[in-house]
Amino acid sequence: LSKLPLVEGVLRYTKENNVSLSMPGHKGGLGFKETLIGQELYESFIKCDITEVDGVDNLHLPQGIIKEAQELLSKYYKSKKSYFLVNGSTSGNLAMVFASFDEGDKVLVERNCHRSILNAIILRKLRPIYIKNKVHTKYDAPMAIDMEHLLHIINLNKDAKGIIITYPNYYGICTELEFIIKECKKNSMKVLVDSAHGAHFGVHKDLPESAVLLGADLVVMSAHKTLASLNQGSFLHVNNESLIEKVDFYVSAFLSTSPSYMIMCSMDYSRYYLQENGKQAYNNLLFNSKKYRRLINEIPHIHILDETDMKSIDLTRYVLNIEKGYSAEVFYKYLKSKNIQPEMCDGRNVILIFSPFNKEEDFNIVYNAIKSCPIEDMKEEYNEVIINEIPAMVLQPYEVMNRKRLWVPLKTAIGRVCAGAVVPYPPGIPLITLGEEVDKNLINMIEYYVKIGNTVLGIKNKKILVLEDEHEEGITYYI
Amino acid sequence: LSKLPLVEGVLRYTKENNVSLSMPGHKGGLGFKETLIGQELYESFIKCDITEVDGVDNLHLPQGIIKEAQELLSKYYKSKKSYFLVNGSTSGNLAMVFASFDEGDKVLVERNCHRSILNAIILRKLRPIYIKNKVHTKYDAPMAIDMEHLLHIINLNKDAKGIIITYPNYYGICTELEFIIKECKKNSMKVLVDSAHGAHFGVHKDLPESAVLLGADLVVMSAHKTLASLNQGSFLHVNNESLIEKVDFYVSAFLSTSPSYMIMCSMDYSRYYLQENGKQAYNNLLFNSKKYRRLINEIPHIHILDETDMKSIDLTRYVLNIEKGYSAEVFYKYLKSKNIQPEMCDGRNVILIFSPFNKEEDFNIVYNAIKSCPIEDMKEEYNEVIINEIPAMVLQPYEVMNRKRLWVPLKTAIGRVCAGAVVPYPPGIPLITLGEEVDKNLINMIEYYVKIGNTVLGIKNKKILVLEDEHEEGITYYI
Repeated sequence: LSKLPLVEGVLRYTKENNVSLSMPGHKGGLGFKETLIGQELYESFIKCDITEVDGVDNLHLPQGIIKEAQELLSKYYKSKKSYFLVNGSTSGNLAMVFASFDEGDKVLVERNCHRSILNAIILRKLRPIYIKNKVHTKYDAPMAIDMEHLLHIINLNKDAKGIIITYPNYYGICTELEFIIKECKKNSMKVLVDSAHGAHFGVHKDLPESAVLLGADLVVMSAHKTLASLNQGSFLHVNNESLIEKVDFYVSAFLSTSPSYMIMCSMDYSRYYLQENGKQAYNNLLFNSKKYRRLINEIPHIHILDETDMKSIDLTRYVLNIEKGYSAEVFYKYLKSKNIQPEMCDGRNVILIFSPFNKEEDFNIVYNAIKSCPIEDMKEEYNEVIINEIPAMVLQPYEVMNRKRLWVPLKTAIGRVCAGAVVPYPPGIPLITLGEEVDKNLINMIEYYVKIGNTVLGIKNKKILVLEDEHEEGITYYI
Repeated sequence: LSKLPLVEGVLRYTKENNVSLSMPGHKGGLGFKETLIGQELYESFIKCDITEVDGVDNLHLPQGIIKEAQELLSKYYKSKKSYFLVNGSTSGNLAMVFASFDEGDKVLVERNCHRSILNAIILRKLRPIYIKNKVHTKYDAPMAIDMEHLLHIINLNKDAKGIIITYPNYYGICTELEFIIKECKKNSMKVLVDSAHGAHFGVHKDLPESAVLLGADLVVMSAHKTLASLNQGSFLHVNNESLIEKVDFYVSAFLSTSPSYMIMCSMDYSRYYLQENGKQAYNNLLFNSKKYRRLINEIPHIHILDETDMKSIDLTRYVLNIEKGYSAEVFYKYLKSKNIQPEMCDGRNVILIFSPFNKEEDFNIVYNAIKSCPIEDMKEEYNEVIINEIPAMVLQPYEVMNRKRLWVPLKTAIGRVCAGAVVPYPPGIPLITLGEEVDKNLINMIEYYVKIGNTVLGIKNKKILVLEDEHEEGITYYI
């Protein structure tokens, strides 16, 4: 047994020296080594882990160098005000939801939103109306929201106070944000955008446009996902002046009063790097990305999603789709055996996240690995991905809190209220979530996914978590 | 104008090479350099800034090395369950308040609590009953709570669901926690302890006892304040099994889903260091601390608080009290001119935070600086610190949210509802806070502090922030 399991485990991982095609964007520190000042920061990082001593300002009442740095950030992204977040986009999502809505407000939200958005909806006690996401039938990847469904939902819910959009999604796929903003503004809805994966958007003409420039009221971006920031570094941009005072309060409430100057410095550096070198750096990255995408797409059974598949997609990212009848899991393990670290595998697609700090050599390693991949040895039976209708909501998600819950066999769960989301991979969209009613159709679908052996979060031994009925013995208290 | 104000400002500060007697506890990285494995971690820190890749577990569903590390943490502190927090004690305070109380619950809370506790009370919509803190008339330092007042308050509020205690306070001063826990348990109240400054308690017999061992239900500790952790690293300990499921949920909700492995590793290392070297390290630290306290206390006009002043106090910390009639501000600047970085100055006291990574040399530097300090040149008029009764509460703090507010001249504010806390330094305890009524006595007190020139947060040009009356023009919306 290790006396220091976490330290030893992480150090062991660093010694694998993988080609980093996962987050964070700085790629093991490479992002800092590209400039003189970045190199100096890299070498002094731990010494920069200081507290609010004289001259280094205070994140919770910025009047000096933090204020200056946030103003440069705002100017660069063309927002009314921008914030450094040291608790990731999670804290940005909480802050923007709390600042925009009050208890009981109705909000439109993508079914395939991030967990922190659902948590914010629960904590703020909102009433969500879910918008369906489309799924690509060829690639089994979750796509942008179903626009027809959205327009229908807007028409039925003109009293909604706002909408929460993911732009882009984990796969780099973008929704028609400009059109959505126009439609929502017609109905005086606030538009909140979780752009965790889009901090680099707008830097180059071949990238999708920045959500801030498209006119969203509030935009959250993870600086650590695609830029040179350390983990937990995120930006929050406000376009709507009337929200600034509220955002000030909630950002401060959800962030540590001992914020990391390392993380804050890395965010200042990320913005600086984009501003000084962004155009050239993304030009190079997109050049390599396109060149090797073309080469890899000539290899049988593997296809990287591109602009012919999707209207708007982040071309810096590789979504490696494995043809139906071949195993993406085995393919993922193969890449790992070649010292390539992908970001994730959903059962049909393997995602690689490149940043400007991945040079041509990294693309070449990926290309050569795939070219010599024994894909014919990776056959498996294909089972279709089916998407259900969103089940009926009988309780609001926050109403599920503080009630007793228990695990019951799927077969006996008809008519009961779900107390924990059920999410199959692919495509990673919840089949049912908190407060929705279990029906026959849903049970069939879950049984299907379990039977074909796909990962299904929220199901244990063919049991599902539901709220307790009054006559049952309480197993435990839920949150 | 700098293109990188934050990075350049922080790097500039690191070049001052001050003796670090402020947070964080690792003292510019020295804490890591004391062991072989720490040295290796120090040299690889940025490479350890990874995401949830294979083998390094997931903080939000720990099943591997993070689970193991948290179990070692729990075992060391003798809790039922312990958590790594990457968003500081702020996130721990939010999580423990949300897990313990429901909307509308009455809670007892120290008047001199941390801002994150007040924010948690606002966000959870609780009804706080404040307990008065005593102030030391000789030193003008905020002390532990007034026990007589506490017993009176418990008697009047037997329906309160719990109590929130700070142990120790910023000055290292400890309240009689064991007695408080006993009294509160008699009335089935949950005991929550903000022990941000007490992560090292219990390691050595000459330190106060750990709040976990004294039987509090929930305890939050900043690992970064006194231990070797990076900023934002904190521990949450649960002693009350029935709260674990709720704590699981709220901890996850308030922490980034991209947690920093650097911060997490530094927390694993902090626990390891305490376990392996704690007794000896604190023996040395306390030896030096006592030795130089004795020497410094022979110097006229300067007194370091000790066990003859307070029943229970953290002796690793120096609270340098400057005699009445001399300026602590000027004394603080003098120390800075000698390249000594104190933690803070409240106008009467300068606080120095030592950790095991400050060796005898640092104590010697402080001693020599004070010995040669021209204190007779630092005279200023002394004005007494007066403490008021807590004003009447007319609205709950959360009810102040979402209402219009405006700044009005102090003289005209009688009878109005306060919309922003007013805090004079010393002693740093709010005179009035959100939802309380401004009265004549309060105005006299504020005018007194303004007149003698002390820092008074929450007062601008002799104006105070209050809620708007119906007939007034709204200046702006408050949060």
